[in-house]
Amino acid sequence: MRHFLSTLDWSRAELQPLLDRARLWREGESGRPLAGRSVALLFLNPSLRTRASFEVGVFELGAHAVVLEPGRGAWGIEFETGVVMDGDAEEHIAEVAGVLSRYCDAIALRAFPLFKNWQEDRQDKVIRSLAQYARVPVINMETIVHPCQELALMRTIQDHLGEPDGKNFVLTWTWHPRPLNTAVANSALLIASKFGMNVTMLIPDEAYRLDEQFMDAADRQAGESGGSLTVTTDIESAYTGADFVYAKSWGALPLYGRPEEEAKLREPFRHFIVDEAKMALTDNARFSHCLPLRRNIKATDGVMDADYCVALDEAENRLHVQKALMAELIG
Amino acid sequence: MRHFLSTLDWSRAELQPLLDRARLWREGESGRPLAGRSVALLFLNPSLRTRASFEVGVFELGAHAVVLEPGRGAWGIEFETGVVMDGDAEEHIAEVAGVLSRYCDAIALRAFPLFKNWQEDRQDKVIRSLAQYARVPVINMETIVHPCQELALMRTIQDHLGEPDGKNFVLTWTWHPRPLNTAVANSALLIASKFGMNVTMLIPDEAYRLDEQFMDAADRQAGESGGSLTVTTDIESAYTGADFVYAKSWGALPLYGRPEEEAKLREPFRHFIVDEAKMALTDNARFSHCLPLRRNIKATDGVMDADYCVALDEAENRLHVQKALMAELIG
Amino acid sequence: MRHFLSTLDWSRAELQPLLDRARLWREGESGRPLAGRSVALLFLNPSLRTRASFEVGVFELGAHAVVLEPGRGAWGIEFETGVVMDGDAEEHIAEVAGVLSRYCDAIALRAFPLFKNWQEDRQDKVIRSLAQYARVPVINMETIVHPCQELALMRTIQDHLGEPDGKNFVLTWTWHPRPLNTAVANSALLIASKFGMNVTMLIPDEAYRLDEQFMDAADRQAGESGGSLTVTTDIESAYTGADFVYAKSWGALPLYGRPEEEAKLREPFRHFIVDEAKMALTDNARFSHCLPLRRNIKATDGVMDADYCVALDEAENRLHVQKALMAELIG
Repeated sequence: MRHFLSTLDWSRAELQPLLDRARLWREGESGRPLAGRSVALLFLNPSLRTRASFEVGVFELGAHAVVLEPGRGAWGIEFETGVVMDGDAEEHIAEVAGVLSRYCDAIALRAFPLFKNWQEDRQDKVIRSLAQYARVPVINMETIVHPCQELALMRTIQDHLGEPDGKNFVLTWTWHPRPLNTAVANSALLIASKFGMNVTMLIPDEAYRLDEQFMDAADRQAGESGGSLTVTTDIESAYTGADFVYAKSWGALPLYGRPEEEAKLREPFRHFIVDEAKMALTDNARFSHCLPLRRNIKATDGVMDADYCVALDEAENRLHVQKALMAELIG
Repeated sequence: MRHFLSTLDWSRAELQPLLDRARLWREGESGRPLAGRSVALLFLNPSLRTRASFEVGVFELGAHAVVLEPGRGAWGIEFETGVVMDGDAEEHIAEVAGVLSRYCDAIALRAFPLFKNWQEDRQDKVIRSLAQYARVPVINMETIVHPCQELALMRTIQDHLGEPDGKNFVLTWTWHPRPLNTAVANSALLIASKFGMNVTMLIPDEAYRLDEQFMDAADRQAGESGGSLTVTTDIESAYTGADFVYAKSWGALPLYGRPEEEAKLREPFRHFIVDEAKMALTDNARFSHCLPLRRNIKATDGVMDADYCVALDEAENRLHVQKALMAELIG
Repeated sequence: MRHFLSTLDWSRAELQPLLDRARLWREGESGRPLAGRSVALLFLNPSLRTRASFEVGVFELGAHAVVLEPGRGAWGIEFETGVVMDGDAEEHIAEVAGVLSRYCDAIALRAFPLFKNWQEDRQDKVIRSLAQYARVPVINMETIVHPCQELALMRTIQDHLGEPDGKNFVLTWTWHPRPLNTAVANSALLIASKFGMNVTMLIPDEAYRLDEQFMDAADRQAGESGGSLTVTTDIESAYTGADFVYAKSWGALPLYGRPEEEAKLREPFRHFIVDEAKMALTDNARFSHCLPLRRNIKATDGVMDADYCVALDEAENRLHVQKALMAELIG
């Protein structure tokens, strides 16, 4: 039995077959390899794409998705070990994991960080405690990383660019009214570096560096894969020659949990929006984003509606890579 | 590819086969014409009948329904074009429609008007923008019209009265503690007039006339179908000789968005409740309502529990007409 | 057609075949006896185990579960007869039951008591009115009793102890921060007494006696089955010689609806927690709880993680007994 918590636990050689299989599913491979099985989808945070793509994927594999939203339609959950549970939580993750492992053949979890204390959140305790107690595979539907999105992104890169090795991948920070989760940014670094791309991370200020556990891993993976990792605050040089531009907004970690201060730091950087002028600097790059995206905030209508925008392709690939993943983990 | 946004876009000759097919489904036709397909059900407003009937219908056709409730379990959605999205919405309908079109074979939407500005709401922008961006059929689960309810109503009329042409159909306004959506009232006018019925709309005051786009359409359709459209405030004359009484409460459009003023106008009209004395004036009419219905407010227990009450038949027909519709649009 | 509202309506001879069938399902019996059917799951209160086990069970039987949460994603419901519905409820149970009976082949309901007036709540009006109006079987997913939990408990007792007759069953009250529903406690008394066990109810104070309708029924059933019913406040004597310890917290009925007063009465009794010292008094008893359980409040980590804790087995059995039940009621 194997979990899918982070691509850091999976080698490129293990991930590529999932991407290949995803393409086959997309091209019409049929079959219901999980007929009669069940998958629990546990959402601690809202979702549209993730919920729809998992539900449809589970169904197409022949299985049933049970959607649970603890704290809304279900009980609050305690994730710490050994605690006297006299707070809000009515149930411990040990029992949640134990029970769901009796009913379902896999458990997928979305659990965003709490945006109070990054030293806490960076440990990803919620999904790690679930994985510890579960007796079935656990799949990460976004915590502080978003590995299913990574698979969809890499499937999309390979669809549009062919072999990713040596291609120029730009991860650009963009402004957003709120300080967002770093998960997709962390994940973009991880997957692009693992697959041999020359990765440029464009940020408006050093405060927007990502957590060192991901920066270090990306650096290490780039070394292993023949790629590279560069961090810059210069917009023009970042875009110039790019093959793939990937946008994401995230909050500055040094001001984590202090949104008013972070907002002041962020305020001058609205011009990091992806627009047609910036895209014109690239080497006919494709543009993508994990969605949801605020139009004319993160990217202009012109970019979103351009032929080079492949965000919908990436979203569609979520369905296919997740089917490949679930078939592999559960089948 | 064709949407089902309003029966105004569909001729009587196109709708009747759906009604005929619905009867076959009800009588036990089997088969799973949509095996392996998926339908997104997007609810911006609560639902019991619509959700249950669509979910069951989708399942019986062999497909899977993904239920999404944006703003609750999913992100808020922006429906305007070209806007700088710095408000509450995290995602534009363009992407919602685009992504769901990649995952699902149809998108059904419930989006009530906002009850602030009728000049805005009467344009039905939410579903029209969804239909504009979707690459799969869009089905209206109630906006400012409720065309699936129309099909269920007409199926029920034909079940109980046979050919609708020349039969007397009364749409009576009733009191209700809140000013409700005009959708089902608009729809009742549209479908009864399209199918050649003599339609009488009974209202307590001229302020309860429906929007001219629907009054005009009903008038035009009545002319084409050999039926008629009459508006009256006289209870006795309206009920006398009726073959089918259909009740609905709705808010006065001239006071749209001003519920306190509207409540004062509405207050004297509690006696528009459908009761046994009024039903005794009819020509042994059937009574129906789209449900939900507040008993002893819109109709008495005596009416609801009478043999002539066919509201449950109409509710059941929702299931069958929607199956016929989805099989037609997606199959 | 038969409902499953309470085990009081079912004899031991009728329940045992359900338990036998549940074991067959657990041991891998296949088949989809409810292929193409639908079951409505109506939740007026939150749920994790119940929702997951019913959804998965319905799916494994070949049917589809429609999950409805009135008041959240659906309309509020009126349960009283003859009322003028000018309050919050938009719909009467008569129509809810009538409509769902047209769409689905069974209706399962969770409706906790309101914790205001026990004289009201003890009548279990919500599910009884649903059963009155439904034209399909109604299944109790917890009201003031929890008969599906009873089946799971008895299946688990038989799995671990063999024939239950003459075995010592202890139902122990435990402390909890809030006054909880008595349903599972009532149910534990009912099922253990019906199956011939020597039942000891351990409570901290006479105020924690359960409602006389359940005390009397348990007493009567014990007489019929050859078992016994004893109530005690003495921890040591209760645990000594026990074969099965079942824990549950519940609020004192004399202070029902007055949580602050009840909290004061409850406060001195935290030591009723199930711990390893108490379990050491038993005759190698198994321990179980219906879950959710607050660790180190109702039972210690040591008890929950011991080999003798069979709470997960009981939770798993929910799935199997419910499949047996639905196949029996609907099939």
